[in-house]
Amino acid sequence: MLSKDSPKIFQNNMPGNVCFGCGRETKDGLHVKSFWDGDESVCFWKPKQFHQGWKDIMNGGIISTIIDCHTMGTAMAYAYKFEKRELSSKPHYRYATGTIKVRFIEPTPNKEVKLRAVVKSYTPKKVLIKCYVESNNKVTAEAEVVAFRVFDSSNTSKNLFSN
Amino acid sequence: MLSKDSPKIFQNNMPGNVCFGCGRETKDGLHVKSFWDGDESVCFWKPKQFHQGWKDIMNGGIISTIIDCHTMGTAMAYAYKFEKRELSSKPHYRYATGTIKVRFIEPTPNKEVKLRAVVKSYTPKKVLIKCYVESNNKVTAEAEVVAFRVFDSSNTSKNLFSN
Repeated sequence: MLSKDSPKIFQNNMPGNVCFGCGRETKDGLHVKSFWDGDESVCFWKPKQFHQGWKDIMNGGIISTIIDCHTMGTAMAYAYKFEKRELSSKPHYRYATGTIKVRFIEPTPNKEVKLRAVVKSYTPKKVLIKCYVESNNKVTAEAEVVAFRVFDSSNTSKNLFSN
Repeated sequence: MLSKDSPKIFQNNMPGNVCFGCGRETKDGLHVKSFWDGDESVCFWKPKQFHQGWKDIMNGGIISTIIDCHTMGTAMAYAYKFEKRELSSKPHYRYATGTIKVRFIEPTPNKEVKLRAVVKSYTPKKVLIKCYVESNNKVTAEAEVVAFRVFDSSNTSKNLFSN
């Protein structure tokens, strides 16, 4: 397991990220942390009790939130990999969600989950990602997410979002 | 505007609801509150600062979460309306999300939003709902959500979830 400060964690390479789901220093945030395991990106995430939707079952919105942040981090990391450069290198890119579709297959216990994500198609502007949520080695939810590049530190005049 | 204890608020008729998104008494929860405005259900929801995804822009996962809870409450309330009975009456039904698809049209300011939802098709078991997120009278996100009835207090032997 990586240390929480490892530079291999995608979100440790996003200076200024204030996101509820994945901002590294967001107080009361979810602190999603993602890294490569071969061609898949993975994230282990542990809820608090109040993240339940039903007693001891994880809230669906929280599941959508961690999928969203994990896949946006994956889109960013994939773009850097595509350009054969380090996560810490410049220019910084950031992605935002165009669409997210989550299918809840069965109740997800409100315990640690593993997220796995794979890039299915890539252009610099648009990345399609498939993501799976696993609890006890069983897929309990799956998602398709479209990410759009909304920030490029080398071309700030055209950015939809500022960072 | 309804008082927070109004029986017209769907979530005030869900005893035992511990949900992060809409549990009435969930500490640190989002406390989504939904009610009918004609054939539409509406929800006004105000974020905290840490619910941002980008500076002053609402986090997409939080948007998905409030849509999810608003539409599940709408599915429940619609079922009661369909049976021509009060929200406070028995049996209690509860719905859980089968699929949720959210399209983010433009950045949503991290300020109060209005959600509107309409039931597009209904069977007791399965409800299809369309939902719109509005900020300053402008639609910034839209969603399609499929809800499944997972709890019926008159038939507890067949329930997927307990309450």
